[in-house]
Amino acid sequence: MVYVLGHKNPDTDSICSAIALAYFLDATPAKLGSLNPETSFVLEKYSFEEPITLTRAKGSQLYLVDHSERFQTIDDLEEGDLVGIIDHHKIGISTSSPIIYISKPLGSTASIIAELFFRKNLDYIGAKNKELPPNIAGIMLSAILSDTVLFKSPTTTTLDQELALELAKIAKIDNILAYGMEMLAAKSSISTLSATEIFNTDYKEFSMNGSKVGISQVEVVDPSELESKKTEILDIMKREFDLKNLDLILFAITDITKEGSEVLVYGNKKLFERAFSVKLLNNAVFIPGMMSRKKQIVPSLEKIYTTGQISH
Amino acid sequence: MVYVLGHKNPDTDSICSAIALAYFLDATPAKLGSLNPETSFVLEKYSFEEPITLTRAKGSQLYLVDHSERFQTIDDLEEGDLVGIIDHHKIGISTSSPIIYISKPLGSTASIIAELFFRKNLDYIGAKNKELPPNIAGIMLSAILSDTVLFKSPTTTTLDQELALELAKIAKIDNILAYGMEMLAAKSSISTLSATEIFNTDYKEFSMNGSKVGISQVEVVDPSELESKKTEILDIMKREFDLKNLDLILFAITDITKEGSEVLVYGNKKLFERAFSVKLLNNAVFIPGMMSRKKQIVPSLEKIYTTGQISH
Repeated sequence: MVYVLGHKNPDTDSICSAIALAYFLDATPAKLGSLNPETSFVLEKYSFEEPITLTRAKGSQLYLVDHSERFQTIDDLEEGDLVGIIDHHKIGISTSSPIIYISKPLGSTASIIAELFFRKNLDYIGAKNKELPPNIAGIMLSAILSDTVLFKSPTTTTLDQELALELAKIAKIDNILAYGMEMLAAKSSISTLSATEIFNTDYKEFSMNGSKVGISQVEVVDPSELESKKTEILDIMKREFDLKNLDLILFAITDITKEGSEVLVYGNKKLFERAFSVKLLNNAVFIPGMMSRKKQIVPSLEKIYTTGQISH
Repeated sequence: MVYVLGHKNPDTDSICSAIALAYFLDATPAKLGSLNPETSFVLEKYSFEEPITLTRAKGSQLYLVDHSERFQTIDDLEEGDLVGIIDHHKIGISTSSPIIYISKPLGSTASIIAELFFRKNLDYIGAKNKELPPNIAGIMLSAILSDTVLFKSPTTTTLDQELALELAKIAKIDNILAYGMEMLAAKSSISTLSATEIFNTDYKEFSMNGSKVGISQVEVVDPSELESKKTEILDIMKREFDLKNLDLILFAITDITKEGSEVLVYGNKKLFERAFSVKLLNNAVFIPGMMSRKKQIVPSLEKIYTTGQISH
């Protein structure tokens, strides 16, 4: 069996890219965790079922989408047959054999799949240059909009915007931004979630020069919705910190309107302060312009963990 | 400045791929070590100068070709700006930011560049879809022939052979195999080299689940040429083992005619014996069918270092 697998704590890009690539590969999309409200909204809108949850890699061929970090993938990865990785994050894996690896610094993994489609290049990665049905185009568009936070994230490229326009034509979405707001509204219905649910929505772990770092991020239109839950979230962070043997754990509350993030920090606070040239007050600090874990938070931390130096 | 950089102890694929990709990127090819006789023969035949030797990454943009392992690349990699990697080996690097990574399990890195060229897809990786001059086609063909050992290595795919034929047309090489034999003859003039030169010709280090493993390989038509130098080579291996703090060091003498390799082994001999289900006699064993470090030696070792299990 061939599976296309997104990362743990799946987000919309991870799930929709798995479904889209599985369609072109004639494979089965799979997930590693339950869907967040935004992703459920998207799948419902385009009439897709939830991908199956994969519990073991053993005996299967795997394509990973939207991740390469060892901590973010299936636990027994080495027992399976890893065929390829399609991703837009930093490279974070060692394999035992050569595989297909396609990575580009675009705003989403769906953008990479869309670019391969529009170039009639899906056969380059062992898939088929099939037609793109409107509902697959719709979930790919949703993934781009979600991962680029409606093109506001600094990870956004002009290519992402061009691809989104082409996908919108096929999906027959006339007003991309109106659709994106509708989608984000589903995501931002955060007031109904528990502190644990909020923290786990988009939590990822990274290995940085031997140290384990956990980073959770939520994007909100109105950060005041979270105000009452911060103490509880910090308690969850302390628990995770001990449990997972972390060196540092962060929770970034990204304010889409204000374009910046309040970051809650536990663990190696000194290192965090040095990495971002900030001063924490009661474990927290607001950093203007900080929108992207991938392009801003992770590289600065990686740099300081690896070289002891601060990114410019 | 933008450099395209091959690995330490460069081989023909590493140098020729750097020159070819640099041509399409309007960048500068660079190397990390002196050329072996085969590569010198190829560059002379097609009238190319040796690429410059890069001594530091700092201040430069880098594309890596034909490698991703940290030990195989420039020492201060993190000080430079890594833009992309084009490779056909296993994935062996962590980066701090997203980059372009194109990897496919083909017989050579030149095959990957050739495939992108014939698909008019070099713009996909930020290069130009320029015309392919006969001398660039000639060195790309040479790289494929060298890395696949004239299509005899198990890493060879039908795509490698198709691409080689297309390149040969452009390079105006009528008899590919005759040209390949001429090239290999230049490589195999091993009797004139010292034991140290032989050992260093194609030596690479790998990090396997925290253990450092060094593997050198030579391909010969007549292994008896090496017979008198084996004791001295084993001494070199012992010295490297101590100096580099290795767990295991190998020297594979690959017999192109007989299609197998005699492997000299020092260090964790028990693990080697288990990995390949063989018994060493005086630090050496002949393994029939063993032709490829990348596809056979490394994966079996990686597997046993990571899981303690033997590859099937």
